Amino acid sequence: MTDRTTVRRLPQRGAYDSQTIHAILDAGFLAHVGFCVEGQPFVIPTLYGRVRDAEEPGRLCLHGSAASRMLRELSTGVPACVTVTHVDGIVLARSAFHHSMNYRSVVAFGTARKIDDIQGKAEALRVISDHLIAGRWEDVRNPTAKELKATSVLEFTIEEASAKTRSGPPADDEEDYALPVWAGVVPLHLRAASPLRDPRLESGVPTPEYVRQFHANGTGS
Amino acid sequence: MTDRTTVRRLPQRGAYDSQTIHAILDAGFLAHVGFCVEGQPFVIPTLYGRVRDAEEPGRLCLHGSAASRMLRELSTGVPACVTVTHVDGIVLARSAFHHSMNYRSVVAFGTARKIDDIQGKAEALRVISDHLIAGRWEDVRNPTAKELKATSVLEFTIEEASAKTRSGPPADDEEDYALPVWAGVVPLHLRAASPLRDPRLESGVPTPEYVRQFHANGTGS
Repeated sequence: MTDRTTVRRLPQRGAYDSQTIHAILDAGFLAHVGFCVEGQPFVIPTLYGRVRDAEEPGRLCLHGSAASRMLRELSTGVPACVTVTHVDGIVLARSAFHHSMNYRSVVAFGTARKIDDIQGKAEALRVISDHLIAGRWEDVRNPTAKELKATSVLEFTIEEASAKTRSGPPADDEEDYALPVWAGVVPLHLRAASPLRDPRLESGVPTPEYVRQFHANGTGS
Repeated sequence: MTDRTTVRRLPQRGAYDSQTIHAILDAGFLAHVGFCVEGQPFVIPTLYGRVRDAEEPGRLCLHGSAASRMLRELSTGVPACVTVTHVDGIVLARSAFHHSMNYRSVVAFGTARKIDDIQGKAEALRVISDHLIAGRWEDVRNPTAKELKATSVLEFTIEEASAKTRSGPPADDEEDYALPVWAGVVPLHLRAASPLRDPRLESGVPTPEYVRQFHANGTGS
């Protein structure tokens, strides 16, 4: 917990323990990755996978095309920020001022290094695949040497991170509770709909259990 | 379309027209805002509202506590990046290499200025409220002068932006289509569940239509 990670606004919403942080990272799969190029910030959405070990600090795997600006910049070891946010609801208070969101977010600072060896790359890609949809990696055609060469893979080491969460009903000013204004929460969940078969899929191929059971966002949806 | 916004990876997924960009911004309400402090990137999730005029370039309203680091930094006019991402599905290909996401995202570059006058602040807050849940502002107790003072409000002017989208089934290598591997898309939608009444809500207050009808993420869900 340093100046960089201190949650200033509503500090009671902040958390710095790795259990909370890892739970939020594990419940998601999309991160917004920030880096600076000569003072210009870039924020790019990307998939990630967390290396599931107990080691501190945590490590995230990122991947993309070898032509990606983000991966090229990050691989130089510049400071990076990886943010993961789950939107859990809209909090409708009786006053405009106390409107809010229910959410869980992690802001993680650190640096990335490029993974160059073929086996390390394949392992990191498997981390991302398993994080997103466990069971898939075993079913698919694994990457060829040529495909691995066209893919950049980074390992992002978390140096510092903070979590911020809000849950529960609105918190209005005491004198506003008597107002005849509807108040409460509209819960939001990222939900998976029924899988859509590829039109070119052979007719005999059943939908795997891990596809039918896919749960997004760790909300039990 | 400059070096900053050029979509390098899979340029066929890129778009630069304001209609596409505004549609993606209008379908969301949560942005990830990036800024740099001495080379250190910060990426912070925050609500936004787009000013719904035809004017070019577009303008977004952001708000938060007067104590917020993000708003304090942005109000100095430093370069900022506002990114909005909708996750529409997981694309499961027959090969690990061609796995992907369906998504719609906008990366917008620009600078923010602080809105200091009370009326301008209230108008910007209304833009954010209307963007998130139209109809709410009329129902609630509006901000007092003291509350407006405790709130920082920024107007972010988009100088440049690009959109990136993917939709549809996987695109496998031709020779992989014969593999007996399930392929297709797991659609994902941010969905609103039934509204939860505040436990302290007076029993006679009905749930407004705009709460019952709330649609998240512009997916028609």
